Amino acid sequence: MTGLDEKARRYALLKAQLEMAQREDKAVILVVAGHAATHKSVLVNQLNHWLENRQTEVHALAPSEEDRLRPYWWRYWRRVPARGRVGVFVHGWYGDVLYARVEQRIQAGAFTDRLDEINRFETTLAHDSVVVVKVWLDIGEAQQAARLHHLQTDPAYAWQVSDRHWQRHAQYAPIQQYAERMRAATHTAHAPWHCIASETPSQQLNEIIALLQDALSQPAPVPAASAGQSWQAARNPVRSDNCLPPRRLAVDDAGASKGSAGGSKIPKKVYRQALDELQARLAHNHRRCLQRGIPVVLAFEGHDAAGKGGSIHRVTTALDARYYRVYSVAAPTDEERLQPWLWRFWRRLPQDGRVAIFDRTWYGRVLVERVEGFARQSAWERGFSEICHFEHQLLLHGAIVGKFFLAISKDEQLKRFNARANTPHKQHKLTDEDWRNRQRWNDYQQALDDMLSHTHTQGAPWQLINTDDKRRARLSVLNQLNDLLEIRLETP
Amino acid sequence: MTGLDEKARRYALLKAQLEMAQREDKAVILVVAGHAATHKSVLVNQLNHWLENRQTEVHALAPSEEDRLRPYWWRYWRRVPARGRVGVFVHGWYGDVLYARVEQRIQAGAFTDRLDEINRFETTLAHDSVVVVKVWLDIGEAQQAARLHHLQTDPAYAWQVSDRHWQRHAQYAPIQQYAERMRAATHTAHAPWHCIASETPSQQLNEIIALLQDALSQPAPVPAASAGQSWQAARNPVRSDNCLPPRRLAVDDAGASKGSAGGSKIPKKVYRQALDELQARLAHNHRRCLQRGIPVVLAFEGHDAAGKGGSIHRVTTALDARYYRVYSVAAPTDEERLQPWLWRFWRRLPQDGRVAIFDRTWYGRVLVERVEGFARQSAWERGFSEICHFEHQLLLHGAIVGKFFLAISKDEQLKRFNARANTPHKQHKLTDEDWRNRQRWNDYQQALDDMLSHTHTQGAPWQLINTDDKRRARLSVLNQLNDLLEIRLETP
Repeated sequence: MTGLDEKARRYALLKAQLEMAQREDKAVILVVAGHAATHKSVLVNQLNHWLENRQTEVHALAPSEEDRLRPYWWRYWRRVPARGRVGVFVHGWYGDVLYARVEQRIQAGAFTDRLDEINRFETTLAHDSVVVVKVWLDIGEAQQAARLHHLQTDPAYAWQVSDRHWQRHAQYAPIQQYAERMRAATHTAHAPWHCIASETPSQQLNEIIALLQDALSQPAPVPAASAGQSWQAARNPVRSDNCLPPRRLAVDDAGASKGSAGGSKIPKKVYRQALDELQARLAHNHRRCLQRGIPVVLAFEGHDAAGKGGSIHRVTTALDARYYRVYSVAAPTDEERLQPWLWRFWRRLPQDGRVAIFDRTWYGRVLVERVEGFARQSAWERGFSEICHFEHQLLLHGAIVGKFFLAISKDEQLKRFNARANTPHKQHKLTDEDWRNRQRWNDYQQALDDMLSHTHTQGAPWQLINTDDKRRARLSVLNQLNDLLEIRLETP
Repeated sequence: MTGLDEKARRYALLKAQLEMAQREDKAVILVVAGHAATHKSVLVNQLNHWLENRQTEVHALAPSEEDRLRPYWWRYWRRVPARGRVGVFVHGWYGDVLYARVEQRIQAGAFTDRLDEINRFETTLAHDSVVVVKVWLDIGEAQQAARLHHLQTDPAYAWQVSDRHWQRHAQYAPIQQYAERMRAATHTAHAPWHCIASETPSQQLNEIIALLQDALSQPAPVPAASAGQSWQAARNPVRSDNCLPPRRLAVDDAGASKGSAGGSKIPKKVYRQALDELQARLAHNHRRCLQRGIPVVLAFEGHDAAGKGGSIHRVTTALDARYYRVYSVAAPTDEERLQPWLWRFWRRLPQDGRVAIFDRTWYGRVLVERVEGFARQSAWERGFSEICHFEHQLLLHGAIVGKFFLAISKDEQLKRFNARANTPHKQHKLTDEDWRNRQRWNDYQQALDDMLSHTHTQGAPWQLINTDDKRRARLSVLNQLNDLLEIRLETP
């Protein structure tokens, strides 16, 4: 590398980037962290100049109001580059936690928690072909002081030196110490740290470019599977004691929720009155969530023709249209296909106080994608733990997570399919795919059982709704949703 | 105990309480925690009935808006019973952390952090003669379910059983598991846990009363000193790497702050203009703190006649009177004397966005109380770490902590004393005590050096101000205060 002259190096880098952009086989993230006065801004500007601008994004993050109103990792998930692109993050997700610890804004345990989360985040990215290159720019304490003094006396650079720089200099020793621990805890085979001594900017740039060039052209490293344990054995990946006892999905079982016992259909008049009451209660509860800034994330899954749409409609009728949004989840768009699979759910998280309703959800990963073979086995197996961590992030932020599974018996489904086929204004709701899915009923049941036993967690349990009686099912959804909100609203 | 009949037991308890109330030698806190459906409310009501009401306070805490706007431990500090009194806390400081962990609202590290804080809190209380009795009411899972069902079918009790109870029942296994870890981590010699099986309320009550009676009548257990290490060796008790290099207080040194270099006095006109600018800047900065809800705690210490009052006055002139408060700290009041020593500072913490200015501070513990012998050596030695933890709690809550030491040379002090003695309208500012303190100049210097080297921390460093030139000193205070606020306001 050192043998090449600047022009050749620059061309080689650009070529590697453009080839990756064409292949769209991975994305590359460069994290530039390090001490103050190590030329970070010079380097980032130079890199930005050398790389193809249209395929590069630079982020020096000061979180916006938008970011702050959502779970912590939202701010990074929304900025993950699509495959084919390069993202440069100044300090990345390391600055926050490092300086918070140095300044005693967080304690030892919270520091460790965040480093664990970072590892999980980077592992998830690596599994989805995002290569993370991490650079730590090092410098000695005396050299840092000398450089700051030197910059300050040069009129061309003096404006760059703020109180903040001197504050970081005063914090040199703890920064050095916590940064070492931080790097040690997050140094993985698929996302290792590279320490670069602070010489001239051009020497530093050479080293960074060599790393970047490797990342752009070499195959992406695959994270080691968590060795030994099969996904069946690992009950709940977040914490085994937080997983509720597994339940098999049988429709008898599905109807066990409060208010839906008994076999006879609910008369229309009784239904109307109960519906009005439940919706009024929901409207009231959501106003309280809005006041308290509690975000609500609702996931609806279910068999075809179980009436997800109808139930969601009964929920939204009670909500203020300004504060909720329904997302119908279908196959990913072209844009979404170039991103890690969870990206399309992260991007739709509601801000504090709002409601996001998902009609089909991230559980597609372990249901349709598994059964239809759209996801490789290793990918959907990993899905259980990725889903639990995703939901865990929502809970840590204080969100209410409601998950409803609308179940139907095989007989009742057939009746509804036939009814749809024979009713002109309902025919559009019945597709060939519905019949195909029905043929795989047993495969789906197996996938459902696995889903329930791996993702029925303490913080985000499944609500099973028997929908053989539609009216009863709708009341049951509303009732359980109200319970969820009220229990949370009772917590100070 | 079991041999006595109820009346005798009741009399013995009351007698022990009244004797303690008379002695005022300690306070007793009873924490009643445990599973749902273990008669907590019955027991607490019964206890309250048996104890002397005027000397007992029961707290079943749902934190108020007032509580939430202040550092976490404020809500408990303000409720610590004075010596001679009994405080009963339902769940106490254990409910928060336990249920937050069970519901995955916090992670493993944050759980450990909080348990460490609990140990520190209880140790601080124990050192100041507050005895903490902790009871865990245990019950089996099946028995809990049976009891809830039973209560629900009895019209007299059905209203007591809420969704919340059933939710706690559904969480039985993780509650059991995390509660065990929690008790193990907070079981100390001076504040041990007592597990009480859930039999009839009267059996449970007997056990609690036996514990309470011991606590009321036996000498308070003294926490073991952190063995081995002397306070001189233990640089900074929070984290040794967070303590800045020790600095000796010499007046030459004290003047090293920005803007106060050079020897000549500042002309009045220059001073007025600089003062106006700095105050305008401060007014602007504080409005931003108010908007962002950042609380500001300012501590002023200094030699007699160094001009603390004058400097504070220049600060408050710039602030909106609705949002700051100045506290002149003198000897504790009668009420304060019955409390742990830090209580009188905790009670004065500002709510978010406000400013509290302390004219003399909690550092009195390691200055005047040390030099004058008002505090035992073991007490002021412990003071360094208690102070650091106190300030650490403020930082964790997001407060700005500014500490200003206004220093003066011995010669300049003499000049000012004489000037005061000879100026009729200033004579009241000079007391015999000032002359006495001056005679102990060297003892105070030693105490100051120790204070600086043990409490000059990363998150809350001391600002040393040379006040031989009063104008320069005032500008310097304002300038450094502005820097402090701006550095913090830059942080997202």
